[in-house]
Amino acid sequence: MFKGILENIVTSCAGGVGAVLMGYDGIAIDQYVVEDATLDLNLVAIEYSNVTKEIKKAAEVLETGALQEVAIKTEQYYVVLHALTDEYFVALTIERNGNYGQGRYLLMRDAESLREALV
Amino acid sequence: MFKGILENIVTSCAGGVGAVLMGYDGIAIDQYVVEDATLDLNLVAIEYSNVTKEIKKAAEVLETGALQEVAIKTEQYYVVLHALTDEYFVALTIERNGNYGQGRYLLMRDAESLREALV
Repeated sequence: MFKGILENIVTSCAGGVGAVLMGYDGIAIDQYVVEDATLDLNLVAIEYSNVTKEIKKAAEVLETGALQEVAIKTEQYYVVLHALTDEYFVALTIERNGNYGQGRYLLMRDAESLREALV
Repeated sequence: MFKGILENIVTSCAGGVGAVLMGYDGIAIDQYVVEDATLDLNLVAIEYSNVTKEIKKAAEVLETGALQEVAIKTEQYYVVLHALTDEYFVALTIERNGNYGQGRYLLMRDAESLREALV
Protein backbone atom coordinates (compact mmCIF):
# COMPACT_ATOMS: atom_id res chain seq x y z
CA MET A 1 0.00 0.00 0.00
CA PHE A 2 2.86 2.39 0.80
CA LYS A 3 4.95 1.25 -2.15
CA GLY A 4 2.32 2.32 -4.70
CA ILE A 5 2.25 5.85 -3.31
CA LEU A 6 6.06 6.03 -3.08
CA GLU A 7 6.45 4.72 -6.64
CA ASN A 8 3.96 7.29 -7.90
CA ILE A 9 5.91 10.11 -6.21
CA VAL A 10 9.28 8.96 -7.61
CA THR A 11 8.10 8.29 -11.16
CA SER A 12 6.08 11.55 -11.32
CA CYS A 13 9.10 13.62 -10.31
CA ALA A 14 11.60 14.60 -13.01
CA GLY A 15 14.93 13.18 -11.82
CA GLY A 16 13.31 11.19 -9.01
CA VAL A 17 15.69 8.45 -7.73
CA GLY A 18 13.86 6.96 -4.78
CA ALA A 19 11.54 7.55 -1.85
CA VAL A 20 11.61 6.02 1.64
CA LEU A 21 8.90 6.03 4.29
CA MET A 22 10.61 5.83 7.64
CA GLY A 23 10.59 6.40 11.36
CA TYR A 24 12.73 8.93 13.21
CA ASP A 25 14.28 5.85 14.84
CA GLY A 26 15.99 5.11 11.50
CA ILE A 27 13.90 2.10 10.56
CA ALA A 28 12.45 2.18 7.05
CA ILE A 29 8.87 0.96 6.61
CA ASP A 30 8.84 0.83 2.84
CA GLN A 31 10.67 2.30 -0.14
CA TYR A 32 10.66 2.57 -3.90
CA VAL A 33 13.82 3.11 -5.91
CA VAL A 34 14.37 3.38 -9.67
CA GLU A 35 16.17 0.40 -11.22
CA ASP A 36 19.41 2.09 -12.24
CA ALA A 37 19.91 3.98 -8.98
CA THR A 38 23.49 4.01 -7.66
CA LEU A 39 22.44 5.27 -4.23
CA ASP A 40 21.77 2.87 -1.34
CA LEU A 41 18.40 4.13 -0.12
CA ASN A 42 18.60 2.14 3.12
CA LEU A 43 21.79 3.97 3.95
CA VAL A 44 20.16 7.26 2.94
CA ALA A 45 17.28 6.49 5.28
CA ILE A 46 19.53 5.74 8.24
CA GLU A 47 21.76 8.76 7.71
CA TYR A 48 18.88 11.17 7.27
CA SER A 49 16.99 9.88 10.27
CA ASN A 50 19.92 11.21 12.35
CA VAL A 51 19.59 14.53 10.56
CA THR A 52 15.85 14.80 11.13
CA LYS A 53 16.25 13.81 14.78
CA GLU A 54 18.63 16.75 15.24
CA ILE A 55 16.28 19.10 13.38
CA LYS A 56 13.28 17.98 15.46
CA LYS A 57 15.35 18.55 18.59
CA ALA A 58 16.40 22.01 17.39
CA ALA A 59 12.77 22.95 16.65
CA GLU A 60 11.76 21.85 20.14
CA VAL A 61 14.59 23.70 21.93
CA LEU A 62 13.95 26.86 19.91
CA GLU A 63 10.16 26.52 20.25
CA THR A 64 9.72 27.27 16.57
CA GLY A 65 6.82 24.86 16.15
CA ALA A 66 6.73 21.38 14.68
CA LEU A 67 9.11 20.44 11.87
CA GLN A 68 7.31 20.28 8.51
CA GLU A 69 9.87 19.98 5.73
CA VAL A 70 13.60 19.87 5.12
CA ALA A 71 15.25 20.31 1.72
CA ILE A 72 18.93 19.44 1.36
CA LYS A 73 21.07 20.28 -1.66
CA THR A 74 24.41 18.53 -2.17
CA GLU A 75 26.65 18.51 -5.24
CA GLN A 76 24.86 15.45 -6.64
CA TYR A 77 21.37 15.26 -5.15
CA TYR A 78 18.42 17.04 -3.68
CA VAL A 79 16.85 15.27 -0.69
CA VAL A 80 13.44 16.47 0.46
CA LEU A 81 12.19 15.24 3.85
CA HIS A 82 8.51 15.73 4.62
CA ALA A 83 7.19 15.16 8.16
CA LEU A 84 4.10 12.94 8.29
CA THR A 85 3.48 12.29 11.99
CA ASP A 86 5.42 12.60 15.24
CA GLU A 87 7.04 9.27 14.41
CA TYR A 88 7.30 9.06 10.63
CA PHE A 89 8.54 11.01 7.63
CA VAL A 90 9.05 10.45 3.93
CA ALA A 91 12.34 11.21 2.14
CA LEU A 92 12.56 11.79 -1.62
CA THR A 93 15.93 11.80 -3.41
CA ILE A 94 16.16 13.70 -6.72
CA GLU A 95 19.05 14.10 -9.18
CA ARG A 96 20.55 17.59 -9.27
CA ASN A 97 19.25 18.11 -12.82
CA GLY A 98 15.79 16.99 -11.66
CA ASN A 99 12.82 19.11 -10.59
CA TYR A 100 13.12 19.87 -6.90
CA GLY A 101 10.00 22.08 -6.73
CA GLN A 102 7.97 19.27 -8.30
CA GLY A 103 9.31 16.86 -5.68
CA ARG A 104 8.27 19.15 -2.83
CA TYR A 105 4.81 19.49 -4.37
CA LEU A 106 4.37 15.72 -4.84
CA LEU A 107 5.31 15.00 -1.21
CA MET A 108 2.84 17.63 -0.02
CA ARG A 109 0.14 16.24 -2.32
CA ASP A 110 0.58 12.63 -1.13
CA ALA A 111 1.36 13.29 2.55
CA GLU A 112 -2.28 12.81 3.51
CA SER A 113 -2.53 9.44 1.70
CA LEU A 114 0.62 8.24 3.45
CA ARG A 115 -0.71 9.43 6.81
CA GLU A 116 -3.98 7.57 6.23
CA ALA A 117 -2.09 4.41 5.27
CA LEU A 118 0.01 4.67 8.44
CA VAL A 119 -2.98 4.49 10.78
CA MET B 1 32.60 43.71 7.81
CA PHE B 2 30.42 40.59 8.13
CA LYS B 3 27.61 42.47 9.90
CA GLY B 4 27.00 44.79 6.94
CA ILE B 5 26.51 41.86 4.58
CA LEU B 6 24.32 39.99 7.09
CA GLU B 7 22.20 43.11 7.74
CA ASN B 8 21.76 43.61 4.01
CA ILE B 9 20.56 40.00 3.59
CA VAL B 10 18.07 40.23 6.48
CA THR B 11 16.63 43.64 5.59
CA SER B 12 16.37 42.78 1.87
CA CYS B 13 14.38 39.61 2.61
CA ALA B 14 10.63 39.95 3.20
CA GLY B 15 10.05 38.49 6.68
CA GLY B 16 13.78 38.28 7.44
CA VAL B 17 14.38 37.91 11.20
CA GLY B 18 18.12 37.39 11.49
CA ALA B 19 21.25 35.95 9.94
CA VAL B 20 24.22 34.29 11.63
CA LEU B 21 27.64 33.52 10.18
CA MET B 22 29.01 30.53 12.03
CA GLY B 23 31.31 27.56 12.20
CA TYR B 24 30.22 23.93 12.15
CA ASP B 25 31.70 23.84 15.65
CA GLY B 26 28.71 25.91 16.84
CA ILE B 27 30.59 29.16 17.40
CA ALA B 28 29.03 32.24 15.80
CA ILE B 29 31.38 34.72 14.16
CA ASP B 30 28.88 37.50 13.64
CA GLN B 31 25.15 38.04 13.38
CA TYR B 32 22.48 40.57 12.58
CA VAL B 33 18.98 40.36 14.03
CA VAL B 34 15.98 42.69 13.63
CA GLU B 35 15.12 44.69 16.75
CA ASP B 36 11.78 43.12 17.59
CA ALA B 37 12.90 39.51 17.09
CA THR B 38 11.65 37.06 19.70
CA LEU B 39 14.06 34.34 18.63
CA ASP B 40 17.45 33.91 20.34
CA LEU B 41 19.77 33.76 17.34
CA ASN B 42 22.69 32.47 19.40
CA LEU B 43 20.60 29.50 20.40
CA VAL B 44 19.49 29.07 16.79
CA ALA B 45 23.14 29.03 15.75
CA ILE B 46 24.13 26.39 18.29
CA GLU B 47 21.16 24.13 17.58
CA TYR B 48 21.55 24.32 13.81
CA SER B 49 25.27 23.69 13.92
CA ASN B 50 24.38 20.23 15.28
CA VAL B 51 21.97 19.79 12.41
CA THR B 52 24.48 20.82 9.75
CA LYS B 53 27.14 18.59 11.31
CA GLU B 54 24.79 15.60 10.91
CA ILE B 55 23.94 16.62 7.34
CA LYS B 56 27.62 17.01 6.41
CA LYS B 57 28.29 13.59 7.92
CA ALA B 58 25.39 12.08 5.97
CA ALA B 59 26.64 13.62 2.71
CA GLU B 60 30.10 12.15 3.36
CA VAL B 61 28.85 8.66 4.24
CA LEU B 62 26.53 8.60 1.23
CA GLU B 63 29.17 10.14 -1.06
CA THR B 64 26.61 12.53 -2.47
CA GLY B 65 29.08 15.39 -2.80
CA ALA B 66 29.57 18.44 -0.61
CA LEU B 67 26.63 19.97 1.24
CA GLN B 68 25.49 23.21 -0.40
CA GLU B 69 22.19 24.30 1.12
CA VAL B 70 19.59 23.22 3.66
CA ALA B 71 16.11 24.71 3.93
CA ILE B 72 14.03 23.90 7.00
CA LYS B 73 10.33 24.69 7.39
CA THR B 74 8.72 24.61 10.83
CA GLU B 75 5.29 25.87 11.89
CA GLN B 76 6.69 29.34 12.64
CA TYR B 77 9.87 29.85 10.62
CA TYR B 78 11.91 29.04 7.57
CA VAL B 79 15.61 28.57 8.23
CA VAL B 80 17.95 28.51 5.22
CA LEU B 81 21.52 27.30 5.78
CA HIS B 82 24.03 28.03 3.05
CA ALA B 83 27.47 26.37 3.12
CA LEU B 84 30.35 28.82 2.60
CA THR B 85 33.52 26.81 3.24
CA ASP B 86 34.43 23.51 4.87
CA GLU B 87 34.30 25.27 8.22
CA TYR B 88 31.66 27.98 7.94
CA PHE B 89 28.06 28.51 6.91
CA VAL B 90 25.47 31.26 7.09
CA ALA B 91 21.96 30.72 8.51
CA LEU B 92 19.02 32.97 7.65
CA THR B 93 15.78 32.84 9.66
CA ILE B 94 12.59 34.04 7.94
CA GLU B 95 9.02 34.38 9.24
CA ARG B 96 6.59 31.83 7.77
CA ASN B 97 4.72 34.62 5.95
CA GLY B 98 8.04 35.89 4.55
CA ASN B 99 9.65 35.19 1.19
CA TYR B 100 11.68 32.00 1.44
CA GLY B 101 12.73 31.96 -2.24
CA GLN B 102 14.06 35.50 -1.88
CA GLY B 103 16.06 34.43 1.18
CA ARG B 104 17.66 31.54 -0.73
CA TYR B 105 18.54 33.90 -3.57
CA LEU B 106 20.06 36.54 -1.25
CA LEU B 107 22.28 33.95 0.47
CA MET B 108 23.45 32.65 -2.90
CA ARG B 109 24.08 36.22 -4.11
CA ASP B 110 26.15 37.21 -1.04
CA ALA B 111 27.92 33.88 -0.41
CA GLU B 112 30.95 34.99 -2.40
CA SER B 113 31.29 38.29 -0.46
CA LEU B 114 31.09 36.38 2.83
CA ARG B 115 33.68 33.87 1.60
CA GLU B 116 36.03 36.70 0.62
CA ALA B 117 35.57 38.38 4.02
CA LEU B 118 36.36 35.07 5.77
CA VAL B 119 39.82 34.77 4.21
